[in-house]
Amino acid sequence: MTRPAGYDILFEPLRIGPVVAKNRFFQVPHCNGMGRGYPSSMAAMRGIKAEGGWGVVCTEQCDVHYSGNHPRELRLWDDKDVPYLARATDLIHEHGSLAAIELAHNGFRTGNLESRAIPLAPSLALTRGIQPITARAMDKSDIRAARRWHRTAAINARRAGFDIVYVYAGHDMTLPVHFLSRRYNQRTDEYGGSLENRVRLLRELIEDAKEAVGDTCAVAVRFGVDELIGPNGITSEDEGRDVVEMLAELPDLWDVNISNFDNDGQTARFSAEGYQEQYVKFVKSATTKPVVGVGRFTSPDTMVAMIKGGTLDFIGAARPSIADPFLPRKIEEGRFDDIRECIGCNICVAGDKASVPMRCTQNPTMGEEWRRGWHPEFIPSKDTDDTIFIIGAGPAGLEAARALGQRGYSVLLAERDRELGGRVRRESLLPGLATWGRVRDWRLGQLKRMRNVQLLPGNEITADDVLQAEMSLVAIATGARWRSDGIGRHHSAPIPGLDSIPVFTPDDIMAGRLPSGRVVVFDDDHYYMAGVITELLVAKGCEVTFVTPESLVSAFTQFTTEQRRIQRRIIELCAAVRTSTGLRGTDPGVAHLACAYTGRETEVAADAIVLVTGSVPRDELYHELQAHGATALTEAGIRRVVRVGDCLGPGIIAAAVYSGHLFARTLDTDLTDWTPYRRENVELDWDQPLPQGASHG
Amino acid sequence: MTRPAGYDILFEPLRIGPVVAKNRFFQVPHCNGMGRGYPSSMAAMRGIKAEGGWGVVCTEQCDVHYSGNHPRELRLWDDKDVPYLARATDLIHEHGSLAAIELAHNGFRTGNLESRAIPLAPSLALTRGIQPITARAMDKSDIRAARRWHRTAAINARRAGFDIVYVYAGHDMTLPVHFLSRRYNQRTDEYGGSLENRVRLLRELIEDAKEAVGDTCAVAVRFGVDELIGPNGITSEDEGRDVVEMLAELPDLWDVNISNFDNDGQTARFSAEGYQEQYVKFVKSATTKPVVGVGRFTSPDTMVAMIKGGTLDFIGAARPSIADPFLPRKIEEGRFDDIRECIGCNICVAGDKASVPMRCTQNPTMGEEWRRGWHPEFIPSKDTDDTIFIIGAGPAGLEAARALGQRGYSVLLAERDRELGGRVRRESLLPGLATWGRVRDWRLGQLKRMRNVQLLPGNEITADDVLQAEMSLVAIATGARWRSDGIGRHHSAPIPGLDSIPVFTPDDIMAGRLPSGRVVVFDDDHYYMAGVITELLVAKGCEVTFVTPESLVSAFTQFTTEQRRIQRRIIELCAAVRTSTGLRGTDPGVAHLACAYTGRETEVAADAIVLVTGSVPRDELYHELQAHGATALTEAGIRRVVRVGDCLGPGIIAAAVYSGHLFARTLDTDLTDWTPYRRENVELDWDQPLPQGASHG
Repeated sequence: MTRPAGYDILFEPLRIGPVVAKNRFFQVPHCNGMGRGYPSSMAAMRGIKAEGGWGVVCTEQCDVHYSGNHPRELRLWDDKDVPYLARATDLIHEHGSLAAIELAHNGFRTGNLESRAIPLAPSLALTRGIQPITARAMDKSDIRAARRWHRTAAINARRAGFDIVYVYAGHDMTLPVHFLSRRYNQRTDEYGGSLENRVRLLRELIEDAKEAVGDTCAVAVRFGVDELIGPNGITSEDEGRDVVEMLAELPDLWDVNISNFDNDGQTARFSAEGYQEQYVKFVKSATTKPVVGVGRFTSPDTMVAMIKGGTLDFIGAARPSIADPFLPRKIEEGRFDDIRECIGCNICVAGDKASVPMRCTQNPTMGEEWRRGWHPEFIPSKDTDDTIFIIGAGPAGLEAARALGQRGYSVLLAERDRELGGRVRRESLLPGLATWGRVRDWRLGQLKRMRNVQLLPGNEITADDVLQAEMSLVAIATGARWRSDGIGRHHSAPIPGLDSIPVFTPDDIMAGRLPSGRVVVFDDDHYYMAGVITELLVAKGCEVTFVTPESLVSAFTQFTTEQRRIQRRIIELCAAVRTSTGLRGTDPGVAHLACAYTGRETEVAADAIVLVTGSVPRDELYHELQAHGATALTEAGIRRVVRVGDCLGPGIIAAAVYSGHLFARTLDTDLTDWTPYRRENVELDWDQPLPQGASHG
Repeated sequence: MTRPAGYDILFEPLRIGPVVAKNRFFQVPHCNGMGRGYPSSMAAMRGIKAEGGWGVVCTEQCDVHYSGNHPRELRLWDDKDVPYLARATDLIHEHGSLAAIELAHNGFRTGNLESRAIPLAPSLALTRGIQPITARAMDKSDIRAARRWHRTAAINARRAGFDIVYVYAGHDMTLPVHFLSRRYNQRTDEYGGSLENRVRLLRELIEDAKEAVGDTCAVAVRFGVDELIGPNGITSEDEGRDVVEMLAELPDLWDVNISNFDNDGQTARFSAEGYQEQYVKFVKSATTKPVVGVGRFTSPDTMVAMIKGGTLDFIGAARPSIADPFLPRKIEEGRFDDIRECIGCNICVAGDKASVPMRCTQNPTMGEEWRRGWHPEFIPSKDTDDTIFIIGAGPAGLEAARALGQRGYSVLLAERDRELGGRVRRESLLPGLATWGRVRDWRLGQLKRMRNVQLLPGNEITADDVLQAEMSLVAIATGARWRSDGIGRHHSAPIPGLDSIPVFTPDDIMAGRLPSGRVVVFDDDHYYMAGVITELLVAKGCEVTFVTPESLVSAFTQFTTEQRRIQRRIIELCAAVRTSTGLRGTDPGVAHLACAYTGRETEVAADAIVLVTGSVPRDELYHELQAHGATALTEAGIRRVVRVGDCLGPGIIAAAVYSGHLFARTLDTDLTDWTPYRRENVELDWDQPLPQGASHG
């Protein structure tokens, strides 16, 4: 395949200081939950990005010193940390890409819980979060030391093979941005007061890096030009712009975005492709150095427009490169329909925040590149004679069919509804979740080209149908239904009185059966569902009281960067929001609430209740088939019946896609006695010498 | 020194199945934040416990399979995990102690975020916490598999050198206790229904372990006999007792406690020494096997009473063994005054929950045994000619003086107040914090025996005093003062209007200056202080409205197991509790509050405001001395002036004690360019073969 006309500009090389990127695709720094905890997984994932055509592949943030240590992510404190980073650069270089590293000192963003060092800040400050720790104001010798640590890390980064070294001044996360901030910097010396003074540390870190490694490495700056908090913070009309103008030609590259991470990494529920353009567009007019920016870009046309329109030189991407590491190659080869577009759900971020290899809703191979040897584009050809009957075309069934089809298996995919997609079709119609339809769209696009996969929409499959199908493997992917009894995390028994009041579940809402009047939405699920249903009901004229046993609205969304936006919206939409509150029972016209701490009861008028609690697998077909017994199945030519996706364990869409993919790779869903993936342990290094300063002086 | 009369029973050996414990001191399983992430640290810490005389030293919980993996703690999935565990058993055996391991499968307590396996449960269940994951009901083959995994782990545990293998059925944490629970087990097969059926898995796991390794290893059961939730749960009058009676002679040892961990690990604020006795006392009457239990035992007399009174055979300890790993040896040698008693603050638990080596308020060497080579009892003798002037006898100053005194240095410890102790003296007078005085008491007890340490209470030291003192090292340990301007985490600028209303800080309250009438307590600190002040003020007749920008009352205490108890108590005591709320400003008689999400303002009548926000170091003396210049200091014979404790970085008491100890070890408080402790990285193991099942079948 050859590159289609009009996209050449995306594939023009561009110089960044002393190095040259082969094209305009720039995987900006992004955390991933692998970091130093899963070094080979991290390295393999970066290598796959390079293979997929990203001209620059960057690491996540990397600590330079024990006094600013992030609890997860990378570290480059000394020689000891070079080998695993060198593994990543080797793999990136194999494909002709440049390797970049984001050096960082987290200042008062970290409590230094591991090292126990008092955190550092431009001025006295409580550390971020709720750890009871106060950072101390750095004196001049601390500032000189911080410069030395950064410089040493830059030199070690070059030793590890990196081509681009970042000075990270973004996301409200690091020392140079803390010095920049009027909120945090109350110094009266040459590092405080005027912007020229507050920018001094950032300037020095850039100069130090250029002096140390600038002959062979480019020095990049990552800078948040707007904090979206108005005049209390940095704005792109004011100091954000001033900083870029002051340092314009000093770094070799500007990587610009909006701050903090909740703003930079907004989900599709709260932002559209290219949402950062209005803030970062000024940067190119202030510097001749190349500029990279992000905006969840998945459209080749938008990318071209960003460059031709003078907004960016490089198309930066984090999440789109996770959903589709091969995005650049697919554009280069004109395979636009093959692009697996990021849906902007941020489940990747949630993985990072849990310090485990992140997963991706669209890309089930994410995090499995090394440990299971999974590739996002290639999959081994079929190695059995099985034929596979998949019942249910939701995310699990679609992915299983697609991957099995790619392997060359003969597949039958049946779906009860006339339209395919299952829960992703239904949920994508809820407020703010339209992009979730991409999970279906990409898979349907792939499936429709496969002659070995037959789609059977509008077919309710019975056990007899299965027994007569003459297929050797049967995967039940019939999803789950929401509970209507109130059982969930807070209530382990059915909520009493539900027969006395109209009760709705998310399944009802998505099927168009809506309550009216005064509605209590009870959320014991804590992800997005109760929130989007509330938005829908309010738009339809309901008066909603939002009740949840958690202390936060949509508590899990604190891991997807959305929680503050969601709670604000829900408070503004609802008649009342009752957090830390359970639903003790109902009577006609009333819901009895109870404080989750004291049990104190209150009541609220209610014409209807919406229960968003737990889900139950729709596994009747599976159990019916099991009830036929092994002999009947064998006689029908069936060697295995499995459940996949929500039918096995109701959960997030990413888990359903993963489950379908795992089945397609292994033809099974059973647990193994051994661990079915490679793993790395902490190396027992008992006998290393005690460093100077460990004990008595 | 020889053992005092009356305590012999604590040192009688006792058989546990095929092995014999040398005495009655049993370090029960406890997590510590080191686990598999810091294997040498973990192993060294356990070794120190053995050296300190604990007859049995147990690990924290240890996963047996990837389908029930805890995000931190130990794992023993296969041979790969044997070496680091063997390091721990070697060190434990060096001192003649028995090594025990707590094997676990976390069932639906875990979301398996690393392995991505669908979690397992007796019946369909949402996983604990707020992860959007549902555990599936195990079928018979899953149960058989779980037994195999546990059995294999027991065999590998013996290979790693363990003498005692636990079946862990406590804390609502593991599969066998989930099967036991009527709340979680709705099975209709022989594993559900009657208690006999629900206890089946636990019985089988014990039998399997005995069959596999019982010839040389003891098999212990850890079981929570009461969940403190009444008839909905296990109680020691009902099924807790029945389970012990049913399995009475099957295990070689019963390790019994109350469940869940928030109950088992209660702080001193909510429990007294021996608080579990009423629940576990029945156990010994139901079995002839040895029984171990806990209760934050630090008193030798209580320990003897527990054994002689027929409650326990072994004195179990987790926290007391952390605060003083040498507790048994000190009793054996009659050195009762040297016992460093646990204060029951649970800062150790907070470290574990953050997945970093735990710290201990009383024992600053905890977690530093291997990485800095620190021993809790021994410290290198002085190796310089310094004489040391410490100003301030709070936790940092007391610990610095004590440890320097132990090293043989000549030390002068001055304190402004007539009584020593600083913040621990003041805070120990607040409701529920009496045990915190132990931080002072133990150190004063040690100091009073040191002829090389001179105490100067009631002395306000000036810069001139320091210059004339003829001491070569000066440590300023003058603590911190609470802010009265409202600046903290939520507010980065002073709160307007505070001059219009009586404002109090915790310093005022502790000095006996109390508000009256309607009081707004504004908590932007989020640890214990605002809560205990609220208790005090309500007891004094104030009507308190508790306001905090966090969604939880005393949010940080969720990491010390206290949060639910504290929030319940505060709700019950206060006129109103306003979470997720900032303090926008004040006017005479009124506090203006603002929703932390929307900014919506409300107001509340207030005769006074108590601000619990940030703290500022009392570092005036330090800066005065610096202002004299290096020459003046040198001429005064002073080679270094440092700050320690809250004067350097206000924080928790454990951090202050640590800071004092670190200074005593290193004679400095500066950061080093290199990392001053040993560390272990994850081993890059790129080339290991892909296991079966990793990819296509």
